[in-house]
Amino acid sequence: ALMQAVAHNVTENIEVLAFLPQNNSYLFSFARVAPAVLYAERILKTDGRFSGFRFNIHFEDSDCLNSAMFTLVDRSCGQKPHLILGPVCEYAAAAVVRLASHWNVPVISAGALAAGFSNKNAEYAHLTRIAPSYVKMAEIFTAMFERFDWRSALLVYEDDKEERNCYFTLEGIYHLMPDIHMKTYAFSEGDALDTDDVLQNIIDTEVVIMCMGAEKIRELMLAAHKRQLTSGNYMFFNVDLFNASSYGNGSWRKGDKYDNNAKQAYASLNTVTLLRTVKPEFEKFSEEMKTSMKQVLRDCKDCESINMFAEGFHDAMLLYAIALYEAMKNGYSKLNGSEITSRMWNRTFEGIAGQVSIDENGDRNGDFSLIAMTNIGSGTYEVVANYFGGNGSFQLLPGISADRFTLKGRHKSPPEIPDNSC
Amino acid sequence: ALMQAVAHNVTENIEVLAFLPQNNSYLFSFARVAPAVLYAERILKTDGRFSGFRFNIHFEDSDCLNSAMFTLVDRSCGQKPHLILGPVCEYAAAAVVRLASHWNVPVISAGALAAGFSNKNAEYAHLTRIAPSYVKMAEIFTAMFERFDWRSALLVYEDDKEERNCYFTLEGIYHLMPDIHMKTYAFSEGDALDTDDVLQNIIDTEVVIMCMGAEKIRELMLAAHKRQLTSGNYMFFNVDLFNASSYGNGSWRKGDKYDNNAKQAYASLNTVTLLRTVKPEFEKFSEEMKTSMKQVLRDCKDCESINMFAEGFHDAMLLYAIALYEAMKNGYSKLNGSEITSRMWNRTFEGIAGQVSIDENGDRNGDFSLIAMTNIGSGTYEVVANYFGGNGSFQLLPGISADRFTLKGRHKSPPEIPDNSC
Repeated sequence: ALMQAVAHNVTENIEVLAFLPQNNSYLFSFARVAPAVLYAERILKTDGRFSGFRFNIHFEDSDCLNSAMFTLVDRSCGQKPHLILGPVCEYAAAAVVRLASHWNVPVISAGALAAGFSNKNAEYAHLTRIAPSYVKMAEIFTAMFERFDWRSALLVYEDDKEERNCYFTLEGIYHLMPDIHMKTYAFSEGDALDTDDVLQNIIDTEVVIMCMGAEKIRELMLAAHKRQLTSGNYMFFNVDLFNASSYGNGSWRKGDKYDNNAKQAYASLNTVTLLRTVKPEFEKFSEEMKTSMKQVLRDCKDCESINMFAEGFHDAMLLYAIALYEAMKNGYSKLNGSEITSRMWNRTFEGIAGQVSIDENGDRNGDFSLIAMTNIGSGTYEVVANYFGGNGSFQLLPGISADRFTLKGRHKSPPEIPDNSC
Repeated sequence: ALMQAVAHNVTENIEVLAFLPQNNSYLFSFARVAPAVLYAERILKTDGRFSGFRFNIHFEDSDCLNSAMFTLVDRSCGQKPHLILGPVCEYAAAAVVRLASHWNVPVISAGALAAGFSNKNAEYAHLTRIAPSYVKMAEIFTAMFERFDWRSALLVYEDDKEERNCYFTLEGIYHLMPDIHMKTYAFSEGDALDTDDVLQNIIDTEVVIMCMGAEKIRELMLAAHKRQLTSGNYMFFNVDLFNASSYGNGSWRKGDKYDNNAKQAYASLNTVTLLRTVKPEFEKFSEEMKTSMKQVLRDCKDCESINMFAEGFHDAMLLYAIALYEAMKNGYSKLNGSEITSRMWNRTFEGIAGQVSIDENGDRNGDFSLIAMTNIGSGTYEVVANYFGGNGSFQLLPGISADRFTLKGRHKSPPEIPDNSC
């Protein structure tokens, strides 16, 4: 009967539960992401293979705590959903994915990016991550540490204790590079940054990797510059994955009397961002998304670009449809969540912005760019290198010299055993 | 109708869901604890006030992960329980208490001892802790640090990454004493203990607080003794709350060639344990429990004593009955979980082993003893001090001199700002 449904375009109802915050302070809020999910639903209807699928998409509010899990439990006494989209926030996703895996329901999220979700053996077995996780991001650092023979790092981050983007971002690096001597320096969101204290920790390290707001980045870079730490004896990195306010945007210009110093300091700063490709079809999608967002969001600073959450949840619908179609063609039911999940993994398909490749662990491979100042006079930036997660290659762009990544003078070597005492 | 039920002994059915592991490696396993719950149920039937209550107690298996939460969700589509007992393990309890609080169902546990559960404002609102939490245990340290003017501590613990007793035990101390300069040293269960590395960390601290197995304690004490660190210039503590194998038992004797050195080293070791009182009624309870346990457990090393989990879950039934009775007498229903919960808090009642006092935050006040060697020749121990949580008093026993807690020589003072960078 199921195969007939596929073969003869009999309608197959698919209950989708999508967890997106109504609160628009989140980049993955309902107003920003729901239009992308609905766009994908419309596209799927035009594809012969999927025209029998009827997606009943229920959007539910979610915070970064337990509300999504409560909603899931309270809703699921009757019928359980066939697919869950989201949540994005780590703690919210953890609770939902555990239950969904217990119930054999696939979950696709453009979030749940923390390292802990990489373990798909048990409680996160049914999670597919449609955006590159923090551990994938960390691969660009692994590639650089190896290529340029760096040996130690100081991870500096601001912790909001709620979404914890920066904590989880740098955790990915910590997780992926156990052999590198690493120190961490955390401060609470809103607290003043004691730049002296941070820079004291720099002494026996080579690379400083920061994840914090733009103001704090500028403060620290100015302080480092003043202490003459920005002349190539240290490498400075800033992580800015999806234009969240928790990430610095790498801009030195503020219009104050420190602009000139900041420009000089930022000559030593490299920013890691997502490498995002755009194909012609993306334009139409992008225009529609902007129109939808602007109808709801006022004074929207981020509405001029489509973020990876909207793109990811769009592609989640495509990926699920492909996997479900395949599973049903092979005689499996939409209720067989593990079968459908396994068909989403180890697969490459065309997403709205370009090719999407999901690895054999159900996590999207990530491509990342390194942005740095290439004109010290004007203080302008360019992409200087790209990292491609599919084959693990790190490529300097033409005209960019490896010299800029060569440490001037090796510091005293760090102790051999990293201090993991906390 | 409810008041009538109380007044006229009409039967009131109370659905109790008790989460206890079938796995007997846990001190709070079904075989050890269920007899205590059933004992309490029988006692309650003989009390006129409660003779209308019919407790339908469903025991469900629980691990230290998600199984309890899954069971709760899967069972609760029809009727939700009126009372949940357990789980004990922190991670298992967190998931269950969140849902129970969302559903307005009271939870009483002799576990969930970690500091995080102290926050009853939201997700743990319906949790009552019938055994003293780790933060309560930490009070004896606060009292001693103040009384003896100690200023810094090194926390050394073994982490099993599952129950995490020792991690959470010492976290309580870390949590309660933010003004004390503290360092932590963790190692994974099963890993060899690098005593040199630990003792390097001792240098600028005064107090060493250990939570690990008996073998590891002995290793470290022997190493400290060899380095002449056991002559009163440092204070050594061992935490042994409920005879779990994760805690050392404070015994120096092993029958090897190091016994004599170990005896000398242990002269500097103080062990913090629960102070447990026993009243005559406890004997009968204790005998019955031992008989029940021995029927199920073979080669049971711990069956000669009743642990705090059995005692706690017994008293949980009493406490709930008192609160429910009071609530119903005042016109509230058994479905009003927050009303019943609030009546369990800020209350003192007679438990099976003695008085039980629950503070205004729903956490049991704890009494603790300090055990130390009092005869260096024979190497025997005695209680040297007690701490009473109800009034916060720390009392040396008669004949015990404060000298044994006086540091011989003050080390260089620690930096003023504790390093909370991890």
